[in-house]
Amino acid sequence: MNNFSLEDLERMIAERAAGGDPASYTAKLVGRGLPKCTQKLGEEAVETVIAALSGDRTEITKEAADLLYHLLVVLMVTGVPLADVLAELESRTVRTGLEEKAARKPV
Amino acid sequence: MNNFSLEDLERMIAERAAGGDPASYTAKLVGRGLPKCTQKLGEEAVETVIAALSGDRTEITKEAADLLYHLLVVLMVTGVPLADVLAELESRTVRTGLEEKAARKPV
Amino acid sequence: MNNFSLEDLERMIAERAAGGDPASYTAKLVGRGLPKCTQKLGEEAVETVIAALSGDRTEITKEAADLLYHLLVVLMVTGVPLADVLAELESRTVRTGLEEKAARKPV
Amino acid sequence: MNNFSLEDLERMIAERAAGGDPASYTAKLVGRGLPKCTQKLGEEAVETVIAALSGDRTEITKEAADLLYHLLVVLMVTGVPLADVLAELESRTVRTGLEEKAARKPV
Repeated sequence: MNNFSLEDLERMIAERAAGGDPASYTAKLVGRGLPKCTQKLGEEAVETVIAALSGDRTEITKEAADLLYHLLVVLMVTGVPLADVLAELESRTVRTGLEEKAARKPV
Repeated sequence: MNNFSLEDLERMIAERAAGGDPASYTAKLVGRGLPKCTQKLGEEAVETVIAALSGDRTEITKEAADLLYHLLVVLMVTGVPLADVLAELESRTVRTGLEEKAARKPV
Repeated sequence: MNNFSLEDLERMIAERAAGGDPASYTAKLVGRGLPKCTQKLGEEAVETVIAALSGDRTEITKEAADLLYHLLVVLMVTGVPLADVLAELESRTVRTGLEEKAARKPV
Repeated sequence: MNNFSLEDLERMIAERAAGGDPASYTAKLVGRGLPKCTQKLGEEAVETVIAALSGDRTEITKEAADLLYHLLVVLMVTGVPLADVLAELESRTVRTGLEEKAARKPV
């Protein structure tokens, strides 16, 4: 069973960014500013797309991990808690469920 | 407290894709094939980058939600469990911790 | 022989944007502002990547055309002449040629 | 007046790729295969988007040059002549002109 969660990663990113350790990739990346963080996010998305189309699951796993990590860095730098993003996802799920119910379609 | 997790979203995506309900966005997207799913992933990443640079937290929250959702769709279609991606992230975290310890730098 | 050039497209984009014709895609896109124009540029790049990996030349041709068009729109909106971009490309070519000459490697 | 054209760049890329000079960036990139070439295309598009939103024209010029170069590399590797892409752009322009004429809207 996997106990490591995205919330754990979010906390670690915040700690390392705050720590400012020059040996920390996170601290260095955050220190380079938001445009560089968004650039990395975009690049990892492109690599995830290419890996997905290659069908190589090991590559997809690595690239998806890179993408999630850099997304959490961008969220931290822009001051958006992961909890807000999950709440947004939950609200859509519920809304979709209701719409489908109204249309007599079960979820 | 937010109880909705990425694992919940992963399960819902799998259920809706399997259900094949024509009113379900997930079922329709998956039905269009992997290239279309990766295209949406790439587009949402671009929108997240643009939202992040705009500084609008409401927009960032929505775009990050879109990005996470479409990433999970691509993972499902390519047969990669979210647990594998989290395990990959965890292994990097531990490794980084050890490397930093070796360099006499606390995490 | 193809006489239509990127410079022709640049001029047409400038004319249509200035014309403000509500039936013109260019005028509408420009009217939606720079973030929307960059979003389209990013999306077309993702589609070009996916088309290239599919190997379908007709698709690649269409997506590359979309990408070039939206790049020229972004250049126009940000006030960068295509001639400046071509001059930059030319300068790199010359520089690379000199570097290769210095290393006794012909272009 | 700028005499360097995209067609010149297309020819140089083809020559360098064919030359296989290990000191040539083009030859090395092409040697790494299509997925790597498309990855670079995607990355340069992301950088162009970020540069455009920053408003820094020098940066935009450089990133647009990078994007055009990597697009031509992808076209070469996938066997699509630039002339075909320009012909596609020309055909759209003409079509749009006719549609606008039909709607009694001048180009």
